[in-house]
Amino acid sequence: MQTKRRKRLSAEEYIDGVLAGNMVILSKAITLIESNLQADMLLAEKVLTGVLPKTGNALRIGITGVPGVGKSTFIESLGTYITNELDEKLAVLAIDPSSQRTSGSILGDKTRMEELSHNPKAYIRPSATGASLGGVANKTRETMLLCEAAGFDVIFIETVGVGQSEVAVKGMVDFFLLLMLSGAGDELQGIKKGIMEMADAIAITKADGENIEPSKKAAIEYKNALHLFPPSDTGWTPKIITCSALTKQGIDNVWELTEKFFAHMTEKQLLEPIRKKQNINWMHETIAYLLKQQFYDRPEVVDQLKTIEKEVGDGRTTPQAAARRLLG
Amino acid sequence: MQTKRRKRLSAEEYIDGVLAGNMVILSKAITLIESNLQADMLLAEKVLTGVLPKTGNALRIGITGVPGVGKSTFIESLGTYITNELDEKLAVLAIDPSSQRTSGSILGDKTRMEELSHNPKAYIRPSATGASLGGVANKTRETMLLCEAAGFDVIFIETVGVGQSEVAVKGMVDFFLLLMLSGAGDELQGIKKGIMEMADAIAITKADGENIEPSKKAAIEYKNALHLFPPSDTGWTPKIITCSALTKQGIDNVWELTEKFFAHMTEKQLLEPIRKKQNINWMHETIAYLLKQQFYDRPEVVDQLKTIEKEVGDGRTTPQAAARRLLG
Repeated sequence: MQTKRRKRLSAEEYIDGVLAGNMVILSKAITLIESNLQADMLLAEKVLTGVLPKTGNALRIGITGVPGVGKSTFIESLGTYITNELDEKLAVLAIDPSSQRTSGSILGDKTRMEELSHNPKAYIRPSATGASLGGVANKTRETMLLCEAAGFDVIFIETVGVGQSEVAVKGMVDFFLLLMLSGAGDELQGIKKGIMEMADAIAITKADGENIEPSKKAAIEYKNALHLFPPSDTGWTPKIITCSALTKQGIDNVWELTEKFFAHMTEKQLLEPIRKKQNINWMHETIAYLLKQQFYDRPEVVDQLKTIEKEVGDGRTTPQAAARRLLG
Repeated sequence: MQTKRRKRLSAEEYIDGVLAGNMVILSKAITLIESNLQADMLLAEKVLTGVLPKTGNALRIGITGVPGVGKSTFIESLGTYITNELDEKLAVLAIDPSSQRTSGSILGDKTRMEELSHNPKAYIRPSATGASLGGVANKTRETMLLCEAAGFDVIFIETVGVGQSEVAVKGMVDFFLLLMLSGAGDELQGIKKGIMEMADAIAITKADGENIEPSKKAAIEYKNALHLFPPSDTGWTPKIITCSALTKQGIDNVWELTEKFFAHMTEKQLLEPIRKKQNINWMHETIAYLLKQQFYDRPEVVDQLKTIEKEVGDGRTTPQAAARRLLG
């Protein structure tokens, strides 16, 4: 694969361009953020520090659901609504650690959101690629900050409901929206345990045609189920709603619900404290991530790991003794 | 507080005593495991390695629920049933990182399980104390191994449903039982999000007198709710059951359900692979825990941490830049 020689700007040029809302420079800045080259990382840090005071002014929304639930179509509908009807500027990002550098991420794929990708008030960026979720999640967070500094009012962060990405996204957004299909069974097979309880709202998608009644039934079932579960510390009870990206029915209700959520959080003055806590947690998570990376990269650890794991698996040594041996 | 000078045995004396099912020596061995003194830790490792081949033969059961749900009474009833009626040998352990060295743990408190504490086939041990969950959880796991080597058929590990302990317990048991009260509202206030989806079975307690009908209703509601949630990878669907520790109604059903679970897991040959994975995960978690402990103990980190956290909280630096600064 041919490596394009990227023309690097100065930190000021990146900062000024992003703050001016220049989409070309924003894209370059995100590419800089995503780079693993040492020199790029130092420059990226300067850029982020420079734009940091201008971040925090967007609504941060996580959107998840298993493949097949219609995420791209949903995002396109909701995104088109809020940009056209409400004049908001929208950035659509994604976390997809499984995406390959050559094939790109399925999420945030512009070809699946054609209308939105041509919308001058919308900006779509596929997921960074990376070997680990921790690394990719960091880049998504920083991309979000750049987009906020560039003046976007709303940020969507998309994730597939089948891995650990959802926990990462939950830790960087204000509002977590789960898309589900009506009817249990196979559709649920893909979703990971614990995600439903993370959701601030559940939208039952594809509520059109023959699916309208089943969707309403499903909404009632989920409402009853969630009622049995512990409430959030924020006092917000998760809401269920049906919608169709095809007929557009309910799409405005989804946004109305989102606005209700933010009104609630603002009234209780919870948004800033939660974001503060998220940032401090993120710092500690990054520390843990880097410590582990350093550790597992050590030659002596690389050498011994498989052998020691086998000893643990075979019950020949306790996990704790094995851990201490590896730590030397 | 007066420090008792403990008489330390040799590794062989501990090993032989535990394997012979000597309860006095088992207790001494657990106390050794719980010690943070370096010399004790080396000796403890020898003892564990010595008994390790004789571990793994018990049913490992986690029991959780908010304070007030009747955990002690339930454990006493179920414990009395399986020791007296079924002739099983039972060890009751606990994870309670909040317990103080001077006041002891509320969980595993013998005064709350008087009948069981006098039962020759039962052994009750309060939680280890410790500054962090990771440290305490490690000690509970090793205590469990010692109990298995000492010949116990069933191990209960008790935890309160309000912290991170449940995730730790889920990672060290085969079967995770959640106790709930009938009726939503205040009783649910205490339980942490995500725990209900972790449960392999839910027992609605205090199903006696006026509470019988409400308990049956609650059982149906929870059954419907859990049906909407993703199934486990093991193919086991969580079951709901009502019982009363007071009248003993349903206690035998709880055990029958537990046996059904183990029959299912044995038939699908899932028990060993899952335990293997738990052990390997535990090793990696211990590595992460020790790396973090080493890191946060560094003098330069202790000095800077509060200041840097404040910078992050105030939005003056990105969490990632802050993490890199602390890592030096």
